[in-house]
Amino acid sequence: MRLQITAEEYGNRQKKLKKIISEEGKEGFITFSALSIFYLTGFHFISTERPACLVIPVEGSSFLFVPHLEIEHAGTAEVLDDVVTYPEYPGEKHPMEHLANALRDRNLAAAQFLAESPAYGSPMGYRGPKLTEILSDLKMTVNPTIIEDMRVIKSTAELELIRESARWGNLAHALLQEYCAPGRTENEVSMRASSEATMAMMKTLGPEYEPKGRVGAMAGFRGQIGKNSALPHAVNINAVMYKGDNLVTGAGAGVGGYNSELERTMFVGEPSREQRRYFQYMMEMMEAAFEAVRPGIACSEVDEAVLSIYEEYDIMDTWRHHTGHALGMLGHEAPFFDLGDDTILEPGMVFSVEPGIYVPGLGGFRHSDTIVVTEDGMDFITYYPRNIDDMIIDV
Amino acid sequence: MRLQITAEEYGNRQKKLKKIISEEGKEGFITFSALSIFYLTGFHFISTERPACLVIPVEGSSFLFVPHLEIEHAGTAEVLDDVVTYPEYPGEKHPMEHLANALRDRNLAAAQFLAESPAYGSPMGYRGPKLTEILSDLKMTVNPTIIEDMRVIKSTAELELIRESARWGNLAHALLQEYCAPGRTENEVSMRASSEATMAMMKTLGPEYEPKGRVGAMAGFRGQIGKNSALPHAVNINAVMYKGDNLVTGAGAGVGGYNSELERTMFVGEPSREQRRYFQYMMEMMEAAFEAVRPGIACSEVDEAVLSIYEEYDIMDTWRHHTGHALGMLGHEAPFFDLGDDTILEPGMVFSVEPGIYVPGLGGFRHSDTIVVTEDGMDFITYYPRNIDDMIIDV
Repeated sequence: MRLQITAEEYGNRQKKLKKIISEEGKEGFITFSALSIFYLTGFHFISTERPACLVIPVEGSSFLFVPHLEIEHAGTAEVLDDVVTYPEYPGEKHPMEHLANALRDRNLAAAQFLAESPAYGSPMGYRGPKLTEILSDLKMTVNPTIIEDMRVIKSTAELELIRESARWGNLAHALLQEYCAPGRTENEVSMRASSEATMAMMKTLGPEYEPKGRVGAMAGFRGQIGKNSALPHAVNINAVMYKGDNLVTGAGAGVGGYNSELERTMFVGEPSREQRRYFQYMMEMMEAAFEAVRPGIACSEVDEAVLSIYEEYDIMDTWRHHTGHALGMLGHEAPFFDLGDDTILEPGMVFSVEPGIYVPGLGGFRHSDTIVVTEDGMDFITYYPRNIDDMIIDV
Repeated sequence: MRLQITAEEYGNRQKKLKKIISEEGKEGFITFSALSIFYLTGFHFISTERPACLVIPVEGSSFLFVPHLEIEHAGTAEVLDDVVTYPEYPGEKHPMEHLANALRDRNLAAAQFLAESPAYGSPMGYRGPKLTEILSDLKMTVNPTIIEDMRVIKSTAELELIRESARWGNLAHALLQEYCAPGRTENEVSMRASSEATMAMMKTLGPEYEPKGRVGAMAGFRGQIGKNSALPHAVNINAVMYKGDNLVTGAGAGVGGYNSELERTMFVGEPSREQRRYFQYMMEMMEAAFEAVRPGIACSEVDEAVLSIYEEYDIMDTWRHHTGHALGMLGHEAPFFDLGDDTILEPGMVFSVEPGIYVPGLGGFRHSDTIVVTEDGMDFITYYPRNIDDMIIDV
């Protein structure tokens, strides 16, 4: 059992990228994105104000450009020819000057590159020029989604990591549900469930487990308890749960850089008629989405299927967001189950399905399941119970 | 006790910003940064692929532009005139088209704005145009550091939140040290200490406590255990601690959107002569930095004082990074205690002091304390013991 993407697969990603570069008539690729560096080389690191950059020429050696403090750590990259370091940011000489020199040393200072962005960016106090402001003969054609597009269809290995993530998200969620009780706070329940699930996960998986991103398993509420659950993106307020409350949860786990998403609407004690009614509408929306998903249709059609249920029950006033989003390395990725997204579904795409109903003064109703598009429809990746009878916290 | 920035202070920030805008001859300010929106209005929210934007004209009403799912939540902003929502991203009409309409509605479509960036950006699948590509008469003068510069000198209220953060980081670290023992993993020790400290923090502070960012208190190792501690930015590998290991820790807590930083080098059992020697060098470096800090000197001078100790002991081969960074809302902020940073120190600036010594095969030696520049020198914000006798885990 290997809970990481293999060196072979990282190599194949780079080969595929080189093919794209060649087809576009360019000589190489430059990225300043920590996520893309990880996706292409397997080097997972902490992104800060200190610039990092990966250069992959079609011919010749690739190199990773990182601050001196990563010099030994960069050795954990799976597929990479060379590492170049600069002393520090801001440094006596700006890191971009060092990068320009590294490109000059390799006769790449006047090359034609594909790039994800023209410059490094970080909110942590980074300031610096575009690379072409230093190397005026360099040509950088910017396509911000070149790697993002490669990430949309998941490989067999990626799906395995996402499924492994779902297992431990499931455990964290089961413990979360077990520990819910009137008077308890969101954080005591969440921390207990998350810690125990993480310990079980790590003991089970052993040293093969490396998070390369989110560490361990997690389940919580992010403030969506009681009336506050009517805010789709509430934030943690250390909310207390009481009898009668809606709870909207979220759970997942980090495995080799990949994630899954599991959310449930639960009730503290017997739900009221009104709560049951909105829950039932939400379940019908989920079913409509599951039935719609198949290769060849547009993402927008899944959202349309869900919207028809809001209309059927005349509850558009409870609508706050579209049906779902892709995910994998990040919690949200393109494409989206959204009226405005005409991306055609293909096998291997992974999405959340999470239509939501939000009733101010009462609460929110949203399950989220992670699914994968298959040759003839879809498969569930998350598998937690979803019927109302399983969603009731005994009081 | 209020553990938040007051509405009055948010208002003053906006007033100060309007003064800057006027002085530069502009009519308003635009930001797409979730952090700047929080800094200026007190609205803390989850940033995703869905664009958010704050518009502050010098004359007339400010407005926040957010997805429909934030419509009720945006009411938690402390100082804000108006909220405009768009249905969804990507949506049938792109959010930037909706924003353009909102500016047209307010006769701002041809205004001269100061901006932090020309467009919204997010790695979560966002794609979209610059605002000026839709509104060709709009003038946006981009200064990416306008709000960052305002954040450099901390107010009395900000310092109180950072000090409150340090208290709970201190508790988390004390528990972390207590739970360290040979054979234990980084995650079991870290999760136990962090959960208990968070529970104590929340029970102590009560409902006045709102994280508005990092939730609760945290202490851990991020993989810096044993030989792996020689990687300054190691990542979590669920490392096991053994007798003889160096441990390099990190602790902090989120309070009203502010943070602090506390790091310590500890030893599992009696340190060797070599461990004591490097620890002593590191302590001399810290003292050199503390002695150097005072208003009127350049940030670079603090780094120079520390570098002279590496040179004195002929250990430049163990150097991996500069002496420290500013912090407050983010874990790293400008300016930096770095040879290349000539920013002049002023009272109210908050920094980490964290010179590090990294010996491959042995381990890392780095304490980090958070300090504030005062009228005549500096004050400690973190106050955890730092001498070697207090850093030894009994085995």
